[in-house]
Amino acid sequence: MSNNTYPTFTDVNTLGEFGLIDDLTKDKTTCQETTIKSIGDDAAVIKNTGEVTVVSTDMLVEGIHFDLMYTPLKHLGYKAVVVNLSDIFAMNAVPTQITVSIAISNKYSLEAIRELYDGIYTACKMYHVDLIGGDTTSSPKGMIISVTAIGQARQDDIVYRNGAKKGNILCVTGDLGASYLGLQMLEREKQVYLAHPGVQPELENSQYLIERQLKPEAQAGAIEYFRKMKFKPTAMIDISDGLASELIHICRQSGTGAFIEEGKVPIHPDSERTALEFNLDPITCALHGGEDYELLFTIDEKDLESIRFMPEVFIIGEMTDPSEGITLHTTGGNIHPITAQGWNHFKEG
Amino acid sequence: MSNNTYPTFTDVNTLGEFGLIDDLTKDKTTCQETTIKSIGDDAAVIKNTGEVTVVSTDMLVEGIHFDLMYTPLKHLGYKAVVVNLSDIFAMNAVPTQITVSIAISNKYSLEAIRELYDGIYTACKMYHVDLIGGDTTSSPKGMIISVTAIGQARQDDIVYRNGAKKGNILCVTGDLGASYLGLQMLEREKQVYLAHPGVQPELENSQYLIERQLKPEAQAGAIEYFRKMKFKPTAMIDISDGLASELIHICRQSGTGAFIEEGKVPIHPDSERTALEFNLDPITCALHGGEDYELLFTIDEKDLESIRFMPEVFIIGEMTDPSEGITLHTTGGNIHPITAQGWNHFKEG
Repeated sequence: MSNNTYPTFTDVNTLGEFGLIDDLTKDKTTCQETTIKSIGDDAAVIKNTGEVTVVSTDMLVEGIHFDLMYTPLKHLGYKAVVVNLSDIFAMNAVPTQITVSIAISNKYSLEAIRELYDGIYTACKMYHVDLIGGDTTSSPKGMIISVTAIGQARQDDIVYRNGAKKGNILCVTGDLGASYLGLQMLEREKQVYLAHPGVQPELENSQYLIERQLKPEAQAGAIEYFRKMKFKPTAMIDISDGLASELIHICRQSGTGAFIEEGKVPIHPDSERTALEFNLDPITCALHGGEDYELLFTIDEKDLESIRFMPEVFIIGEMTDPSEGITLHTTGGNIHPITAQGWNHFKEG
Repeated sequence: MSNNTYPTFTDVNTLGEFGLIDDLTKDKTTCQETTIKSIGDDAAVIKNTGEVTVVSTDMLVEGIHFDLMYTPLKHLGYKAVVVNLSDIFAMNAVPTQITVSIAISNKYSLEAIRELYDGIYTACKMYHVDLIGGDTTSSPKGMIISVTAIGQARQDDIVYRNGAKKGNILCVTGDLGASYLGLQMLEREKQVYLAHPGVQPELENSQYLIERQLKPEAQAGAIEYFRKMKFKPTAMIDISDGLASELIHICRQSGTGAFIEEGKVPIHPDSERTALEFNLDPITCALHGGEDYELLFTIDEKDLESIRFMPEVFIIGEMTDPSEGITLHTTGGNIHPITAQGWNHFKEG
């Protein structure tokens, strides 16, 4: 009966929790044979086919981990899933199921939540995982998303952070720093927009960086390649906090040192250009930017042949005796110690 | 060097995320043989011993699910774990691991978070489960806790909500309504306190009700008993939203009707007394109060002998043809349809 041309938004409270779950999950089927019971009982039931189950969980909080001013809800849902799948791949396991819990304030309409779940289900389809459970509830402020990812593997296939040895080769699956620079672009344009709401954002040349920030991918292909080659890394971690921080984790847990060759660290040309635009050193962005969701891994020298035909891999350094510390060999020939600069410290730098 | 007698509180930010995790998990060991890798890698690793893995997750939000004015943080941590374990038991499985993610605003000190984790670890010890992972992050407001519980079982042992048959006996493992009435007591005393801060709360005679609300237990004993008796219910659910709502779930999914005999529903004498004090009908509190975390289950009539020596069990009704609906047979001889009154509706009643 309404004649207005504005879209109408539905108050979530008209559905109740069960109605909302029904709305979000209707017509959704599962794709994994191991999913015996999905949403709709006290708990989900997964068939154990591998020797071990691998579990990882993350919580994303509005205003801390994401800003809805420049994050489309569909992208947010996609990213929330991907960052968890990335942790399962980092164990050299394949994710098969996820649970998603959300708390939302009443500023979110049913249509907004459908957008979020559209992104969640898009990621599920992309990575062949089933959404098998979760919780939906109210929040007094903003949105909170908690995702748990589950995978299975043979016990021997699991790769921990603590298996690197002196002399191992240090590799990464893709370019670094782009996601951080994408975030800088979005933050800058947000400030411009807040000051001058009429101005169009200048993001045309930053497509790649912004996609790396808003819609990252997990490295399913790398794990598939390892399996195909019947080979496994000695240690592995995914890069969520930044190359430096993750390398320090591997070194501490493995009891080694390491060096990275600055000239070998893959940095996308758009990242180079944008870093300079922001008066930032590109290698600093690569070392400390984070949210790249590439895999950092170490391999035995004798396995070099195994990664020769890996579609995307970069050898960036080597594991050393712990007495040699963790260092960056600069293109200028200098040696700098690598420390874990916190995110905040980095921002001030 | 401080001479004051007040406790000193530590700002969480001085530790950082990794420091906080180290502080909370130091000296903690795991007790389950199936826990291969706990906190400290990209994901936790669990040995698959059962045929299936069972997973359940819940999110608790400050101001929605709990009020820290009358909820001690240790109790909150304990309850957050227990409500998830309850879901695993409701599948007739045994929980073995949990993950816990928390988001906290800067009003919480390190000491406060330690209290919360003290409760979490106390529940872990009580129920022999390992805390194997999670996430700690900031929140712009209040506290959010997300717990995922994991268990394993033989596939044949799993009990769903959809297996009840006409003629099955309806049972519950303990008294109902106490938790809801405990909440009413706490809410009333909170209002008195807010109006007259000097007045001592009158909670001496409500020990039982308040413990049911603040420190509920999951029904591990019932599942152990079923296993010992080599017997399983036809359908089962845990009572989190209230007897009426859970019975409706079983009936809908099983395609049956059911009746409950009012006189058979177990209600604690303290619940009876307090309900009348609040001008509430005790049976209404039992039907719609929720948060009892008792198990509601149905058994084949031929299995009646199997539950004869069950330490705590009450036969409260029977499953019927769906055409007979879901009804309450009152002690006065009347038949009332049972509907799922939402929590809010109930509050207005």
